[in-house]
Amino acid sequence: MKKISESTVRRLSLYLRFLQEAADRGLDTISSDELARRGGTTSAQVRKDLSFFGSFGKRGLGYSVPELVHRIRDILGLTHTWRVALVGAGKIGSALFSYRDFQRRGFHIRAVFDSDPLKVGTPWGDLLVRRDEEMDRALIEEEIDIVIVAVPAEAAQGVVDRVVKAGGRAILNFAPTRLRVPDSIALRNVDMTVELEGLAYAISGERLR
Amino acid sequence: MKKISESTVRRLSLYLRFLQEAADRGLDTISSDELARRGGTTSAQVRKDLSFFGSFGKRGLGYSVPELVHRIRDILGLTHTWRVALVGAGKIGSALFSYRDFQRRGFHIRAVFDSDPLKVGTPWGDLLVRRDEEMDRALIEEEIDIVIVAVPAEAAQGVVDRVVKAGGRAILNFAPTRLRVPDSIALRNVDMTVELEGLAYAISGERLR
Repeated sequence: MKKISESTVRRLSLYLRFLQEAADRGLDTISSDELARRGGTTSAQVRKDLSFFGSFGKRGLGYSVPELVHRIRDILGLTHTWRVALVGAGKIGSALFSYRDFQRRGFHIRAVFDSDPLKVGTPWGDLLVRRDEEMDRALIEEEIDIVIVAVPAEAAQGVVDRVVKAGGRAILNFAPTRLRVPDSIALRNVDMTVELEGLAYAISGERLR
Repeated sequence: MKKISESTVRRLSLYLRFLQEAADRGLDTISSDELARRGGTTSAQVRKDLSFFGSFGKRGLGYSVPELVHRIRDILGLTHTWRVALVGAGKIGSALFSYRDFQRRGFHIRAVFDSDPLKVGTPWGDLLVRRDEEMDRALIEEEIDIVIVAVPAEAAQGVVDRVVKAGGRAILNFAPTRLRVPDSIALRNVDMTVELEGLAYAISGERLR
């Protein structure tokens, strides 16, 4: 299996989203132009991204939507569901827990952990919030694929160290801090303040004028 | 004012976070090595990023923490506070509203809008959730700098078109869809499902083995 770059994977995710929207609207085919427009890229890039996985799409007819959905899901490993654990039952954890887009795309939260005794035992959907101490064993017993970290910044590294020790391989971090993990761990950070600061920088020239 | 690349701005944001943590711990100086380690980059990159803005840091002594905090805040336009509007008073909006890191770094949410009559008028902190229809005027009257979009995917483009029409310049989008905006608008997307899919791809090879 060839390894695809992170930026290509990101674009494939976006294409997939548009393709699924197109399928919902009953479209059978889609052009590389349309995919490019929605993905913020060029049609040449779309063709390049897709040709990497073999030839599909017919000149003048565009790509078959169901075929492309199937192929991209296959490439990204989305044909099965993924077992996700959520660490941190605060406001952000709660928003993620009920985020419909995760479910819809095959990511199922199977366990929620928190260190706050007032939160432990409260029902979240079909689950009960569990004691933080149970996490290490549960990750193994429940065959968790991906751990979402939504704890305060100062607690995040400790949680992540335990995830790594328990054999975790993939972490999505929402805590506003950079985490240290071994190279073998897949780590993505969602850093909302960094995004706001990027916007602030982008418009600060205008503001000062 | 020279224009800095998006990736440099991102690193400066991260350096700033570590520097503020260092200041909280009472540190006066920090080395480029330490900044690099925390920012997931090399000390050569740190020196290059910082030298771009003039010479500070003394060989063998490291950078002065308060000086560097001040300079980076200045560069990123964080010496004043930014007026933010939040569109969408759902779960994600609520989590963002009470996200302490925004406040701490100068981003103040001044108005919250929702189209749901049941939500309109409910108190959020010192604010009341306002009718979606009031947004266009309020963005101007309240001199909003940045709009956070936290509405469902199907509503997002409509909101953004109105923001652009009302003269908005910067948008942080949480809706799981790619938005079309004129080139003059600064837009960042936080797409949590795309991040999860990236992780799924990263570990799917292992899973299939």
